[in-house]
Amino acid sequence: MILVLQKSATEKQVEHILASARAWGLKANVSRGVERTIIGLIGDETEIRSKPLDMLPGVESVLAVLKPYKLAAAEARIGRTQIRLAPIKKGGRPVVIGGPEVVVMAGPCSIESREMLLDIARLVKKAGGKILRAGAFKPRTSPYSFQGMGYAGLRLLAEARAKVGIHVITEVMDVRDLEAVAAVADILQVGARNTQNFTLLKEIGKLHKPVMIKRGLANTIEELLMSAEYVMSEGNHEVILCERGIRTFEPMTRNTLDLAAVPVLKRESHLPVIADPSHGTGHWDLVVPMARAAVAAGADGVMVEIHPNPEEALSDGSQALLPKTFLRMMDELHRVAQVLGRKVG
Amino acid sequence: MILVLQKSATEKQVEHILASARAWGLKANVSRGVERTIIGLIGDETEIRSKPLDMLPGVESVLAVLKPYKLAAAEARIGRTQIRLAPIKKGGRPVVIGGPEVVVMAGPCSIESREMLLDIARLVKKAGGKILRAGAFKPRTSPYSFQGMGYAGLRLLAEARAKVGIHVITEVMDVRDLEAVAAVADILQVGARNTQNFTLLKEIGKLHKPVMIKRGLANTIEELLMSAEYVMSEGNHEVILCERGIRTFEPMTRNTLDLAAVPVLKRESHLPVIADPSHGTGHWDLVVPMARAAVAAGADGVMVEIHPNPEEALSDGSQALLPKTFLRMMDELHRVAQVLGRKVG
Amino acid sequence: MILVLQKSATEKQVEHILASARAWGLKANVSRGVERTIIGLIGDETEIRSKPLDMLPGVESVLAVLKPYKLAAAEARIGRTQIRLAPIKKGGRPVVIGGPEVVVMAGPCSIESREMLLDIARLVKKAGGKILRAGAFKPRTSPYSFQGMGYAGLRLLAEARAKVGIHVITEVMDVRDLEAVAAVADILQVGARNTQNFTLLKEIGKLHKPVMIKRGLANTIEELLMSAEYVMSEGNHEVILCERGIRTFEPMTRNTLDLAAVPVLKRESHLPVIADPSHGTGHWDLVVPMARAAVAAGADGVMVEIHPNPEEALSDGSQALLPKTFLRMMDELHRVAQVLGRKVG
Amino acid sequence: MILVLQKSATEKQVEHILASARAWGLKANVSRGVERTIIGLIGDETEIRSKPLDMLPGVESVLAVLKPYKLAAAEARIGRTQIRLAPIKKGGRPVVIGGPEVVVMAGPCSIESREMLLDIARLVKKAGGKILRAGAFKPRTSPYSFQGMGYAGLRLLAEARAKVGIHVITEVMDVRDLEAVAAVADILQVGARNTQNFTLLKEIGKLHKPVMIKRGLANTIEELLMSAEYVMSEGNHEVILCERGIRTFEPMTRNTLDLAAVPVLKRESHLPVIADPSHGTGHWDLVVPMARAAVAAGADGVMVEIHPNPEEALSDGSQALLPKTFLRMMDELHRVAQVLGRKVG
Repeated sequence: MILVLQKSATEKQVEHILASARAWGLKANVSRGVERTIIGLIGDETEIRSKPLDMLPGVESVLAVLKPYKLAAAEARIGRTQIRLAPIKKGGRPVVIGGPEVVVMAGPCSIESREMLLDIARLVKKAGGKILRAGAFKPRTSPYSFQGMGYAGLRLLAEARAKVGIHVITEVMDVRDLEAVAAVADILQVGARNTQNFTLLKEIGKLHKPVMIKRGLANTIEELLMSAEYVMSEGNHEVILCERGIRTFEPMTRNTLDLAAVPVLKRESHLPVIADPSHGTGHWDLVVPMARAAVAAGADGVMVEIHPNPEEALSDGSQALLPKTFLRMMDELHRVAQVLGRKVG
Repeated sequence: MILVLQKSATEKQVEHILASARAWGLKANVSRGVERTIIGLIGDETEIRSKPLDMLPGVESVLAVLKPYKLAAAEARIGRTQIRLAPIKKGGRPVVIGGPEVVVMAGPCSIESREMLLDIARLVKKAGGKILRAGAFKPRTSPYSFQGMGYAGLRLLAEARAKVGIHVITEVMDVRDLEAVAAVADILQVGARNTQNFTLLKEIGKLHKPVMIKRGLANTIEELLMSAEYVMSEGNHEVILCERGIRTFEPMTRNTLDLAAVPVLKRESHLPVIADPSHGTGHWDLVVPMARAAVAAGADGVMVEIHPNPEEALSDGSQALLPKTFLRMMDELHRVAQVLGRKVG
Repeated sequence: MILVLQKSATEKQVEHILASARAWGLKANVSRGVERTIIGLIGDETEIRSKPLDMLPGVESVLAVLKPYKLAAAEARIGRTQIRLAPIKKGGRPVVIGGPEVVVMAGPCSIESREMLLDIARLVKKAGGKILRAGAFKPRTSPYSFQGMGYAGLRLLAEARAKVGIHVITEVMDVRDLEAVAAVADILQVGARNTQNFTLLKEIGKLHKPVMIKRGLANTIEELLMSAEYVMSEGNHEVILCERGIRTFEPMTRNTLDLAAVPVLKRESHLPVIADPSHGTGHWDLVVPMARAAVAAGADGVMVEIHPNPEEALSDGSQALLPKTFLRMMDELHRVAQVLGRKVG
Repeated sequence: MILVLQKSATEKQVEHILASARAWGLKANVSRGVERTIIGLIGDETEIRSKPLDMLPGVESVLAVLKPYKLAAAEARIGRTQIRLAPIKKGGRPVVIGGPEVVVMAGPCSIESREMLLDIARLVKKAGGKILRAGAFKPRTSPYSFQGMGYAGLRLLAEARAKVGIHVITEVMDVRDLEAVAAVADILQVGARNTQNFTLLKEIGKLHKPVMIKRGLANTIEELLMSAEYVMSEGNHEVILCERGIRTFEPMTRNTLDLAAVPVLKRESHLPVIADPSHGTGHWDLVVPMARAAVAAGADGVMVEIHPNPEEALSDGSQALLPKTFLRMMDELHRVAQVLGRKVG
């Protein structure tokens, strides 16, 4: 940490700061410039961060030298994290996220019925999608909206997984449901409203189960990495990051998909990065161009919503792709991936 | 709901929309203008909202006629909600939030020690503050930061409440802690990171205990009201709303305190409205002017952080008031409140 | 326009609204629902928009049926606008923006010297870039920063254009410079700080000269289209739209490049759409992935900054590509464009 | 400036950085920590800022020690700037902005007619308002909206000033109108869309005429101060700063009035600070509470819009106060001002 002192800072204030530093077990390096005196504090950065340094009399501003994430930081690991999902059936193929393949996660927003789920699961698998997404527990802004099928939905998801032979990702909102969701899901999903639900993150950190953390609508890239850090600091290192749009002033899209977060996250961290253009835009006609853009930006995968009949969807129908649009998208994504030396499906 | 059709919408599309409306049990009112055909859908608005109307072929846009909140809406109630906290001791005075008095909630960010908590509790009470705030469970961006004293902190809070005779508010982050927190707190606090933790809101809705919901950093005023609606729809109508700053591009303050939310919330809802200038600004020297401003804007109360020695605070020291600054603020708030025919303390 | 009345609106208020509508020459259509009375106003929407309808007693909210842009709207034109720049020399090739080719505009942020400009112009042309970008007038946040070479820069630009045979785009900030800039530039650039400089837009509207309008940091997509409308309503229909990032809370990038604006603008308007990943991200290592993403999202072109020696650039060196990186990017953009049936260079 | 080097930075890179610093005439101070090497650059900060330091190989991040504003900075001046408008008539009273009095600037959004302007001017003066605001040139999002009366409006403004004896402020949008506007106005207004119209700011800097610069919708507080710096660096030190709302995701208000900017600006700068709750909220019923809040936050004045018949206003009728509401507000503002030892009127 670097303390920039006020122009008017007195020698006594400097001494008080140095004494405080010593009391905290830190080394201090004073540099007296023409305009400002600067004090560098050297020691355990995590410890230093916890101090309200800007309250020390004479301090004008505090500048951080190191990033607050450690386990999630690129420099914490040689090479990139690849998350491997074991084959469902003997002799089946594993799925690897963060490797050369661009992984497509697709499915309905909500689990609505057995038939629909099985049909879409088969469609996704046939088209080269590797993960079935489908929500049993739905975080809805209104208490009067459909809240998901809950445990009945989880059972259908388990059935689709086994019957169709496709890995599944589904959201968990409540620590009390964690065991049940983890029993079915290959990847746990932490939704954008729970990015900083630290209670949930800590519990997931105690499991041996991959988790995909979505970036919250008001979360910086740094905060998303700190949420990953919560999980990792508890011992679970299988974390996937997901950009799904932030909240801005623009009303023509549901959110603003911050695709630059993809290359930033890949520079800052070794963890795989997925983009979700369905929630990121909120309109089906924007999903395909933004899915292509995500792959072109270097995403390790995309997550999209599909519905056989969007005008009857129980949630988020506006952003669901028709099966035929999904198939066209898969073809385009594969071709864009090839430009980067990757493939889809 | 009003559907604006595309200029190119065909008669067949209009018929399909009308058939869908009938199937959903809705009445439809068609108005054919020069530029656009417009269809008004009449019926249960909650039901209508759940339909992906913009997916109906020929629809250009969908306009909502009614607000999505019902129980929290101003028109749901004659007069304003006043939340009454019973006296702690026989013969003591109750505290009323949402009445003529502007209620000050003050205390340390975190519970750090028994002595400190008791000292501040006494200070707050003596100065005319009605509620002691102090966190036992702290949502911190970093897993490496102080996470609060937890249950030990709750016990100290109960002791301060009883010994000093002051009502208390404290945050609950985990549904599994709800019973324990509710046993101590007069008001439960839902923090800005949990505004849309619907699991937590639903459980709180089942209690008979006042709750203060903070506006999340990315939440619109409407969404804050919908979070109140979650609690109210479960049966708990004792909800307090709290503006504590939203996230914007401005880096000189920790958040942007949206004080216009105060009069907007008071127009849209019958619930009491509190402002938190400590989190809303992040700097102690901005807390006093913004607390005055909040009262001038019509807030039913303010929540501020105090620390006897901010440079040694375990969390958020930068935004804590010194006791003497707090006392000066109380005097100023009282005088501003008088301009509006109210009082503090 | 649709007026939603308050639940408490009286019959007298309805009559007053209808009388006002008649006085304004509008037809009104009253629909009395269970919860709300709704009044549709029919007539010249532009005229209706100018009225403060929400001030009419009894009105709760006002809903717009039509978009405020007319000439810029997709429905104003059959097919898309293609902007054709005539060949510089006899027998040379024209450049078409908005056609099948994805057009790359590249060059230094500022014109710094004759040699550097000529070198980069040759590089851009050789690599298949069609337009040389280079600033003579630079809008800088600080009055103490380099403000551009001004008229001397324009002369160098004219020389580079003639010698190398490449079309040029350059920014105009001051109406008093308009004639001089238009004498040199093939395309005028209106920068992000002047998106709503209506004085400048109106004057450009009176010229016969293509103009590229950059989206301002706080401008919605609708406002960008309204700025295009300013130019078009004066008679100049050769407008190019440019997404270059909006301002959000994310500090890791200079701006947030809103790539979803590309497909939205192409749906809402017939005008060509360019993306600028240099200003959109502010870091050279993010420019290439975001340029690829822009092409994948359907942009008609990209604008990027190049510098032979970024660490000595007089402005915006951090976001400039080295020549060799630019060449690699051109190859990748061409291959992504092919996926969409387009080409680069 | 402080350079934080990458963990992997080599000794050769350090040497290259030191050589660059020497070449730029800067002194460098190297501090080798356990985790990072840090280099402090000492010399003319303005000069240092112009270098793309983050492009130097081995540099991870660049931290600024000094604020970029100099003349506008609090430390540039002993005491606060007070702007004195000479009396209009002999024996009249001057108006001082930035002194003990809280100055109210009020009037119609647009000049619409002679009678209306004179009536409102008399009302404002009688109620204790010190400055008449009224727009002759109106920046409107749509080219089809009323653009102001222009020069005819200026003549009416001059008449109202002379007849009623009240100082006037009016907006200038076009450098070509500057002389004419300055001939009438006591204070020039730079609107929110021109906060970074550096052409206009530089020209105003050459005049001897007070100017009020509104904060742009996407401008940080630092950028607003840099816009003041543009004017001041040309020689005109009579600058007033105005907070009028920034653009955020909240749709219930037209903008988000960032009242914390008031105390921040007063801490960072010696210039007077005004708040505009009319544009800051966009709704007349929010103007009065937010005007009170602005005074409570320490603003040196407020600017509000008045209209005798808002439902017939040619622009911004929704945010105009009725005369009787204005009178009530004036009384309340005076009483709030008294709490801070100030007065209104």
